[in-house]
Amino acid sequence: MHRLTLAALAVSTALASPSLAQTPVANPPGGPTTASRPRPTPLPVAVDPKVARLRDKALADDTAYELVEALTTEIGPRPTGGSARQAAARDWAVTRLKALGFKNVRIEPYTLPNVWERGAETGEVVGAYAQPLRLTALGNSGATPAAGITAPVVYFPSLNDLLLAPEGSLRGKIAFVSNSMQPTQDGSSYGSAGAARFVGPNVAARKGAAAIVIRSIGTDHGRGPHAGGTNFDAGVAPIPAAALSVADAENLERLVKRGRPVSLKLVLTPRFVGARRSGNVIAEVPGTDKDAGIVLIGGHLDSWELGTGAIDDGAGLGITTAAAKLVMDAGRPRRTIRMVWFGDEEIGGLGGDAYAKAHAGERHATASESDFGADRVWRVETNFAEAARPIGDRLAVALAPLGIVRGTGTAGDGTDIAPVVRTGVAGIDLNQSGLRYFDYHHTPEDTLDRIDPEQLRQNVAAWTTMLAIVADAPEEIGPVPPRP
Amino acid sequence: MHRLTLAALAVSTALASPSLAQTPVANPPGGPTTASRPRPTPLPVAVDPKVARLRDKALADDTAYELVEALTTEIGPRPTGGSARQAAARDWAVTRLKALGFKNVRIEPYTLPNVWERGAETGEVVGAYAQPLRLTALGNSGATPAAGITAPVVYFPSLNDLLLAPEGSLRGKIAFVSNSMQPTQDGSSYGSAGAARFVGPNVAARKGAAAIVIRSIGTDHGRGPHAGGTNFDAGVAPIPAAALSVADAENLERLVKRGRPVSLKLVLTPRFVGARRSGNVIAEVPGTDKDAGIVLIGGHLDSWELGTGAIDDGAGLGITTAAAKLVMDAGRPRRTIRMVWFGDEEIGGLGGDAYAKAHAGERHATASESDFGADRVWRVETNFAEAARPIGDRLAVALAPLGIVRGTGTAGDGTDIAPVVRTGVAGIDLNQSGLRYFDYHHTPEDTLDRIDPEQLRQNVAAWTTMLAIVADAPEEIGPVPPRP
Repeated sequence: MHRLTLAALAVSTALASPSLAQTPVANPPGGPTTASRPRPTPLPVAVDPKVARLRDKALADDTAYELVEALTTEIGPRPTGGSARQAAARDWAVTRLKALGFKNVRIEPYTLPNVWERGAETGEVVGAYAQPLRLTALGNSGATPAAGITAPVVYFPSLNDLLLAPEGSLRGKIAFVSNSMQPTQDGSSYGSAGAARFVGPNVAARKGAAAIVIRSIGTDHGRGPHAGGTNFDAGVAPIPAAALSVADAENLERLVKRGRPVSLKLVLTPRFVGARRSGNVIAEVPGTDKDAGIVLIGGHLDSWELGTGAIDDGAGLGITTAAAKLVMDAGRPRRTIRMVWFGDEEIGGLGGDAYAKAHAGERHATASESDFGADRVWRVETNFAEAARPIGDRLAVALAPLGIVRGTGTAGDGTDIAPVVRTGVAGIDLNQSGLRYFDYHHTPEDTLDRIDPEQLRQNVAAWTTMLAIVADAPEEIGPVPPRP
Repeated sequence: MHRLTLAALAVSTALASPSLAQTPVANPPGGPTTASRPRPTPLPVAVDPKVARLRDKALADDTAYELVEALTTEIGPRPTGGSARQAAARDWAVTRLKALGFKNVRIEPYTLPNVWERGAETGEVVGAYAQPLRLTALGNSGATPAAGITAPVVYFPSLNDLLLAPEGSLRGKIAFVSNSMQPTQDGSSYGSAGAARFVGPNVAARKGAAAIVIRSIGTDHGRGPHAGGTNFDAGVAPIPAAALSVADAENLERLVKRGRPVSLKLVLTPRFVGARRSGNVIAEVPGTDKDAGIVLIGGHLDSWELGTGAIDDGAGLGITTAAAKLVMDAGRPRRTIRMVWFGDEEIGGLGGDAYAKAHAGERHATASESDFGADRVWRVETNFAEAARPIGDRLAVALAPLGIVRGTGTAGDGTDIAPVVRTGVAGIDLNQSGLRYFDYHHTPEDTLDRIDPEQLRQNVAAWTTMLAIVADAPEEIGPVPPRP
């Protein structure tokens, strides 16, 4: 396999003829194509020795691990939805961030209109195959009576099959959608497999189902169900909706395939408890040039309560905080680095929405979020206006020694920064490998021991490099066409 | 982590309002972004039961494995560059493909203008640290005298560092470029790390180097050097250029970092042997509608000679041939499926160029190539004009049960199909995982035992599904804007 011959020829020619100096090096096999080919790195690009030193120092820095260790040990789960433990975590965060030397450390409160709260949740197969099932209610799930409901199962191998079911055909039945998920480095299989959770319950409710159970959106084969939110359209009465552990879903599939009717008993008693106060935690590294725009970074403080929120998203808090501290300790940057520990991300990015509303008047130069676990960063993507593109070139060259490739997409991913990115702020994404993430995501297994300290340090080195280059970049970082 | 809430809401709404039916489900975290977001699958999409049956049958079909086993056992290495063993493989292929029942099986000859042929290749560290090095010459490398050359090493951690070296600073020296490579599922790290091989020798030659050695472009840590081609600009005299095994490159790095001068002795005696005849092998499944355009598929028959060309590219031949046979045996398709076993891909796609020239007058509907090993297909990408896009939707739904996600790039990857794709033919890519591929790519370790029969069958199922849908699609598959 040698697909790059033509591009390579073009580049070697480019070294002789400046006119071709923009020819891409990387048009990878089986990867991004000419339609979205990377803006090339116009070689050679010199790396600021100060940046290289900081990058190497970060590879030996354990601030991130110490922070995640402390958060998951001293606070533990931080239930999404304005919980008391999330509030305790905010106070804990303020103390920690002040102790680390950050400035303008504060809590910015906001109100959640109507919070969904988990109740009892049990499930079992009844009848000839009677056996218990491990499950958890999906966020925004409707409730069964306290005594539960018992109904026959209708099996759908995928969301597409559920959508093909005739209207009304599910009346009085429990829909069971069980598409599996393969790991992908770029996380794209979460988008396709996850649709069963995001929209499956709404579809089943429209077709008259009494309830729905789905195979957990995960790449493991364990007994820990994967929590997560779902949504019902206005005017659609929420039905009980739960995720079975992958092992339990596979067992239920085998039972259904025996050909005899299978019935389930479900007890799910979540409820909406009304408005609650919650908040974001903010800390800053003040810059010397307040007109140059804010470099916005962060992760989220809330977590699903089954685990301790180590990879989702204690790791993101640790990575961004450790990187910001390394840059802060190296001397005052040009741009202010603002770090936000967002609240209530898991139920739809409510902390991110509140932040964007509260800071709508301020100029943000860039926005970046770390919320994809603790495994190594494999790709960097940017979204700069023309004047700032040399920053992207410097990022690509400075990150390459960490084993990071330059991607071809338009950066700005992340629920919490989305409202800011939508206003036309440039995004910088440091994409982590998703190959292990969905083994533990939203499960009881999301605990400290899932974090590989060496990969965590590689993340800190990547973020430190990014912050050192972007916060001090002399270029103007202007607005970009807003992402939808 | 729950980045898809907004997209999910949009989709659930879309089920009520057709106007929103195009809202994407999959805008994956850390993955493709709004700039290149997938065209959504307008759910629900019914899958033809005949296609589903063929897909499931393919999962139990071992034709692909049997073909690769026979090719690598009976022929072995098929050296690129019009070799006698490549010629023997063409005759072998004609017999095999006729026996499998394909029609119009033939060899289409072409001439290679001036073939590069490997000679002696040895390397050693001389002086205080004297020890042998495992290496192999890069395709198009210049030659040393038969007695070899001995010169001091100048170490460059990356191609970028070599480019920063002053003109003339390498006079009489051996450049050593040693950037490492991390595995990527989409193969994108081959593009960035590979640049050291594609253009490094040309850069070193321009700066006056006597020779260049690079760390093999691979993700392994073994002793087997990775072969591969390089290119010199017109007017640049080729210098001796070789790839060290990753283990040897890492050892040489350690020696250089001791701080004392390190010298190498290199003996590389490749030569250009002039013009040679070579050829492509073609086989067809004739369609019923000769105006509907040809469905072009294939892989390449030549291989680097260090291994036996099992994953590069015996697997691609086996996968596409097994899929075409399954579709052929299920009844005559609407479109003619033309399979090409291309020659001399490894030295720049010369078989692909010859095919495109010979068949310039014919209408091709689609083009697809399998040349990325034998590991599972994880993503499908297409490049259809508007009228044919429902075909892409059917592909996405029918491939999902194989664990394949729908990608967002513009399809048409592959050295051999590139000349056809550049004429505006729609591409369909079934992207295989690159996570293991570069452990063995172009090394002595590219042998049958690297192939996982179960993953190979998943490939055959994916290709069978694709061919069954595309060859029989009632839609017009018209031209698309040509890829550069």
